[in-house]
Amino acid sequence: MSAPIAITKLDSSTADFQQRLASLLAFETSQDDAIEHAVAQILTDVRQHGDAAVLAATQRFDRLTASSVAELEISKDEMQQALNSLPTERRIALETAAQRVRAYHQIQKQECGSSGFSYTEPDGTVLGQKVTPLDRVGIYVPGGKAAYPSSVLMNAIPAKVAGVAEVIMVVPTPDGVKNPLVLAAAFIAGVDKIFTIGGAQAVAALAYGTATIPAVDKIVGPGNAYVASAKRRVFGTVGIDMIAGPSEILVLCDGTTNPDWVAMDLFSQAEHDELAQSILLCPDADYIAAVERSINHLIATMPRQEIIRTSLTNRGALILVRDMDEACSIANSIAAEHVEISTQQPEHWAAKIRHAGALFLGRFSSEALGDYCAGPNHVLPTSRTARFSSPLGVYDFQKRSSMICVSEAGAQTLGKVAAELAYGEGLQAHARSAELRIQ
Amino acid sequence: MSAPIAITKLDSSTADFQQRLASLLAFETSQDDAIEHAVAQILTDVRQHGDAAVLAATQRFDRLTASSVAELEISKDEMQQALNSLPTERRIALETAAQRVRAYHQIQKQECGSSGFSYTEPDGTVLGQKVTPLDRVGIYVPGGKAAYPSSVLMNAIPAKVAGVAEVIMVVPTPDGVKNPLVLAAAFIAGVDKIFTIGGAQAVAALAYGTATIPAVDKIVGPGNAYVASAKRRVFGTVGIDMIAGPSEILVLCDGTTNPDWVAMDLFSQAEHDELAQSILLCPDADYIAAVERSINHLIATMPRQEIIRTSLTNRGALILVRDMDEACSIANSIAAEHVEISTQQPEHWAAKIRHAGALFLGRFSSEALGDYCAGPNHVLPTSRTARFSSPLGVYDFQKRSSMICVSEAGAQTLGKVAAELAYGEGLQAHARSAELRIQ
Repeated sequence: MSAPIAITKLDSSTADFQQRLASLLAFETSQDDAIEHAVAQILTDVRQHGDAAVLAATQRFDRLTASSVAELEISKDEMQQALNSLPTERRIALETAAQRVRAYHQIQKQECGSSGFSYTEPDGTVLGQKVTPLDRVGIYVPGGKAAYPSSVLMNAIPAKVAGVAEVIMVVPTPDGVKNPLVLAAAFIAGVDKIFTIGGAQAVAALAYGTATIPAVDKIVGPGNAYVASAKRRVFGTVGIDMIAGPSEILVLCDGTTNPDWVAMDLFSQAEHDELAQSILLCPDADYIAAVERSINHLIATMPRQEIIRTSLTNRGALILVRDMDEACSIANSIAAEHVEISTQQPEHWAAKIRHAGALFLGRFSSEALGDYCAGPNHVLPTSRTARFSSPLGVYDFQKRSSMICVSEAGAQTLGKVAAELAYGEGLQAHARSAELRIQ
Repeated sequence: MSAPIAITKLDSSTADFQQRLASLLAFETSQDDAIEHAVAQILTDVRQHGDAAVLAATQRFDRLTASSVAELEISKDEMQQALNSLPTERRIALETAAQRVRAYHQIQKQECGSSGFSYTEPDGTVLGQKVTPLDRVGIYVPGGKAAYPSSVLMNAIPAKVAGVAEVIMVVPTPDGVKNPLVLAAAFIAGVDKIFTIGGAQAVAALAYGTATIPAVDKIVGPGNAYVASAKRRVFGTVGIDMIAGPSEILVLCDGTTNPDWVAMDLFSQAEHDELAQSILLCPDADYIAAVERSINHLIATMPRQEIIRTSLTNRGALILVRDMDEACSIANSIAAEHVEISTQQPEHWAAKIRHAGALFLGRFSSEALGDYCAGPNHVLPTSRTARFSSPLGVYDFQKRSSMICVSEAGAQTLGKVAAELAYGEGLQAHARSAELRIQ
């Protein structure tokens, strides 16, 4: 048996707790100047030389030679063949997940004000808001080791539910190796076009457009440091989703859940990568000890045990709290991506959590179910950004326009108010424009 | 009489129209290295030295000496006195505008899914979404020449309607000169605290917090190049609103509106600053000539005529189109901040506009009414970002959390799906975490 994992143990009643918690949570992405410089160059190249620059970068980085970007497009037929080639169990699982994600986002669309609104005032003035889908969206899908078909579903389905007319996916295929599960997921999700390109060159092609690749209005989806830098740089020309930090799970447990279950939930986050963060908050010291025993017992069975070990050692923690109320208060200060409330009467504690990407209530709601098939999106705010941002949703693929239809009578009363304030701000043309409508 | 304004005239039927339109619209903010460097230094200083750094920067840039940051706070009493000191007409106008903006955003809150949702599946699994306000928001208000009380209302009121507990405003007061209209607007809007600080130091204080200034979760509001750079740099630590470009108006007119009205509407945008953009789309060449005569006749009456002249000459345009359908199509490609549909039956054409920050329907809906008091927000997407973004609204001060409560029965069926897909992605801890819940 291997050495026990040296996971950090904290006690909220100690004097240095806040300081130790802060240093545990501290995480900053540092900008790498070499990456920044390379990305700036690639963006300029693609903007100036279009398809030719995309082809050159794809040959250079993915060792993929093509005589035109059109050759790098994957046809609908090939997507469907990828789906047909899957083992039946896997195909059914993918289709079930897609159907559940679609159902959730359809309800979200109904419930999140997608139909806009308008109301008429007594003088006939009509005010309101119009909601429209984006015209065209780009989805970045990483290739290679982190090829996640579930990400394809989670990014493409809300866009299609929102009513986006065209969803363009890019996925690098280094050395030409394609992942059938990713292509199958794209087919099921209703992706309209796929190009086998990646990196900053793919982001640039989507943002600026080339002769072959249409310019999109927004780019979503995860990627490496080059992709993240490119997305930051094209923001403004197109919309982007959040730049995700390492994934996080925070488990609040009252000590009544099988400790193996909690240990495995902590593993499921830790196995993502060495920087992932898994934290347990519990008021029962004996239970924390039991979870630690489970961790050291179960780790041997894990194929990705080296990643899990590093993640738990460097960034994990088992934290003893005074009571569940304090656990909720600490959870609000951490504002984690995934928050599991593995307790009796989880609704009671969930009501106290203000900041979380997703809340998993009760011991049967393992985070893994949310990652794949419960229905809600698995693209969630990380690194405390749940304080001010939301899961990816239908609303990210829609935008609103205000509607103002002032009646002749309304222009008389509103005109006086606007003119008075405009003169106060020294904007006389504003004032005159309002006054001209006053009879 | 002064020289006629050399406003660009385009005709959509000419061969080079698309190219000339593109070059008219082209606008890029270039990063100024000196500003970037200065801002990076100020952010580091405030992060490391807190209040002391804020005081030093305020003395340096605003020539304002104080022995503590607490001295730079404006009390509620002083805000109320500012309101009481206003001439009655102006006070009533400000209160009327605030009441109308509040009413619109309250309806927006009801209509945009602020109550969240949840639904129960046949096996007892509950899925949903919880909506919560941000805890604390910072509002940047420029001082000096561009001191706009209407901006205070438009930024603070949606935050308070959303339920934000604490709204902290910062406004620089160079040489200690305060603007009573701005303080009065803050009082009416329900701003909780005001500090008379500005620039990158104010953004840093709000993002990181100091001993005196509480850290916020999101910073909104316009500012100069230093403020914009600082907001970009603290994004991620806090949320930010869009970085606004120059303001724009696009008037679609069928030739039936008094040409003086349209000319003044174009002026009202042009008077903001030299980079503002005012464009008319009209299928009637005679009417375009009439608007041009109005422009050259009315310009002499405008106190800000030099700004208007420069803006219209460099960035304005009168565009002859084939018909109103083409006008709508061009409007969609421009995706302007403000779109006035100054026509008969404006609803007919508004239905064809997919991309616009705000739509003003009918000849009585001058943009000035929307800027001050119609009710909808005047913080709107510029520079074609209306393709993917929305007016500032209650939704910008709320965030969502997914809710997943899987029943024991649900864990059996969902667990199999999740495990199948997790094995497909090579994430065995995810799979095991789901399988442990299967009896």
